[in-house]
Amino acid sequence: MPYSYLKPLLDNNGSKIILLVLDGLGGITTTPDSKTALEAATTPNLDRLAREGSLGQTIPIRYGITPGSGPAHLALFGYEPLEYVIGRGALSAAGINLPVNAGDIAARGNLCTFDANGNITDRRAGRISHEEAAPVIAKLDQVQVPGVEVDVRQVKEYRFVIVMRGEGLTPHLNDTDPQEVGVPPLKVEAQNKGAEKAAQLMGKWIEEATKVLADEPVANGFLLRGFATDPGLPSYQSAYELEAACIAEYPMYKGVSRLVGMEILDLVGPGTQGEFETAKKHWEGHDFFFIHIKKTDSYGEDGNLDGKSKILEEVDQALPTLLELNPDVLIVTGDHCTPCVLKSHSWHPVPFLLWAPKTHRTDLETSFTERNCARGGLGTFPAVETMSLALAHAGRLNKFGA
Amino acid sequence: MPYSYLKPLLDNNGSKIILLVLDGLGGITTTPDSKTALEAATTPNLDRLAREGSLGQTIPIRYGITPGSGPAHLALFGYEPLEYVIGRGALSAAGINLPVNAGDIAARGNLCTFDANGNITDRRAGRISHEEAAPVIAKLDQVQVPGVEVDVRQVKEYRFVIVMRGEGLTPHLNDTDPQEVGVPPLKVEAQNKGAEKAAQLMGKWIEEATKVLADEPVANGFLLRGFATDPGLPSYQSAYELEAACIAEYPMYKGVSRLVGMEILDLVGPGTQGEFETAKKHWEGHDFFFIHIKKTDSYGEDGNLDGKSKILEEVDQALPTLLELNPDVLIVTGDHCTPCVLKSHSWHPVPFLLWAPKTHRTDLETSFTERNCARGGLGTFPAVETMSLALAHAGRLNKFGA
Repeated sequence: MPYSYLKPLLDNNGSKIILLVLDGLGGITTTPDSKTALEAATTPNLDRLAREGSLGQTIPIRYGITPGSGPAHLALFGYEPLEYVIGRGALSAAGINLPVNAGDIAARGNLCTFDANGNITDRRAGRISHEEAAPVIAKLDQVQVPGVEVDVRQVKEYRFVIVMRGEGLTPHLNDTDPQEVGVPPLKVEAQNKGAEKAAQLMGKWIEEATKVLADEPVANGFLLRGFATDPGLPSYQSAYELEAACIAEYPMYKGVSRLVGMEILDLVGPGTQGEFETAKKHWEGHDFFFIHIKKTDSYGEDGNLDGKSKILEEVDQALPTLLELNPDVLIVTGDHCTPCVLKSHSWHPVPFLLWAPKTHRTDLETSFTERNCARGGLGTFPAVETMSLALAHAGRLNKFGA
Repeated sequence: MPYSYLKPLLDNNGSKIILLVLDGLGGITTTPDSKTALEAATTPNLDRLAREGSLGQTIPIRYGITPGSGPAHLALFGYEPLEYVIGRGALSAAGINLPVNAGDIAARGNLCTFDANGNITDRRAGRISHEEAAPVIAKLDQVQVPGVEVDVRQVKEYRFVIVMRGEGLTPHLNDTDPQEVGVPPLKVEAQNKGAEKAAQLMGKWIEEATKVLADEPVANGFLLRGFATDPGLPSYQSAYELEAACIAEYPMYKGVSRLVGMEILDLVGPGTQGEFETAKKHWEGHDFFFIHIKKTDSYGEDGNLDGKSKILEEVDQALPTLLELNPDVLIVTGDHCTPCVLKSHSWHPVPFLLWAPKTHRTDLETSFTERNCARGGLGTFPAVETMSLALAHAGRLNKFGA
């Protein structure tokens, strides 16, 4: 459960919270005179909120730890990421709304290419198109073995999810993906005694499915990884008494949102403006909105500082659409940093802006940048405290003790 | 036990520490141009200490959690407030120096008014005066049931404490106060099997006591809440090797101080100056002084910013009395914030000033305000670290490890 001390204090007062996550928001500069994408961007609206509200910076997981997107979002949602570990399989299945219940096992799959000796020559089957991959994956979905039920669904292009349902299954199986070419796939094996039945059934299914793909010209094999079951996350409703909605373009973020019981909203249009308009459309029906902007991270991974700055300016320009909704609390932050200099996720503290016009404390900072956030009134704190701060500033937490 | 790693490091060097708690000290401004009471107050002495020493800000309990006075003070005293939970009954009994030992049960009581059908019409019996309530509460003290001993003592006006002593009592009983009018009081019931004997005896006492008050014109009933027993807090002497004294006007703060083994000093005069003179008088006999100023909180709760500023100025003007004692460590902080804007306790970080002329580290901050504390050299830290910092700066902690 997210912090169990919160639950007895909850006061569902109908106030509304927006958590705007700019994926990979923070950057770094390695010299005093250079600028991060956030510093380079012209963001008058964010700077105004920074002047009025409180800044701070979060540690996503622990000091020095670079998070993947799953644990980074779990932390923002208030779920201690070292305690709640979601297997990749369960996360991917949730992303495409394929149910994984307790006792089911799910895994991520890639179509791949084998040579005549059964060695892998391409781990992604030449990155074949979505349309080419679809019938191959449909063939996999037909493969069944006695005693269990198997569902296989395409995610995107050569990527799919497999879910096996039956009695006595546990997900403690090793990946079959060896993460290299020139070798055969690994055999699926039980990592403990309890998983032997699952290993045997999954092994059988792999054997049958491999035969079925043997005649495919390119995608004549597949690799599985991230075996997992339902992580059993408490819902936002039970943990926070919040009717939460997710506004995101990418399956991964919808997946983790679905696992905490958020309703996944259909977007009314493309891009940032489309996402913000979606919040406007559904404003009455929910009291918590998680809005996810992906491109800040993508440009960070590409090392494209101008591109990242432009997206930040796009967000800033669209911000009035959210502000006109009069949220009680608006938090703008990232799940982790993706510095353009590093072209990857990083462990650096993440800029955090809290604006709650009735309850925030104005600090001395006057613009929304990494360097200002480091001096902000909220200090440097674990990302997993985000929901506690959101609930408090929304007036949704009663006093603790007399 | 407060941090068990402290105990082996303790070095009782005779140095002296003052912990000056300005209740509800911190405020908020929700716009850049307005001022908190602390910012509005003219406090040259505190600002000098801020220039010389270190500032910081504390999180009283956890991020976003608004504390009651009990847990907030426990944290300042070094007792993890989520671990050491003091029931209201035990705290109230300690406040009036009514012993509650392990196995006794204590509760807070209110005199109230019932109508002819036994429904509550006023939960505070029309707030009858201390003098009017005294004989009614004295009647309750006469009521006894076989097998236990009962003490009832007036706290103030219509408020009293009841302590029941006997074999096999545990405090897991529900409140009889329904927290509303127009309904009868709740029956006292056991919250688990072990509390059934206590429930039966307390029920019997309530029955008898209710008969005794039946003829009273106004206060013809009573409500009980916060059943609790001795929380068994380790003493300051055993945890810190400190001979601690409490200088406070209000029973509640004397109560929590008594529970950690502080000596409660009689005040030599009224107001802040009276409290500081009390420290002067007893300076030789103790090495730790907890001094509690209540009115900062009271004015905060009233939303009276001028009043709160004035009290802060009064404290500032009286400060030389403390400084002339040459304390080794002087900490000035609050137990929580009570922003005038919110008229209530809050979760915001609390300003913290540490002045220890031989050991503090001067930081860049030059005045004692919320916004400066947010940038202070001590950072943002849990209030429960206060005693560790106090002991360290007093030279009372040896090195950990070789």
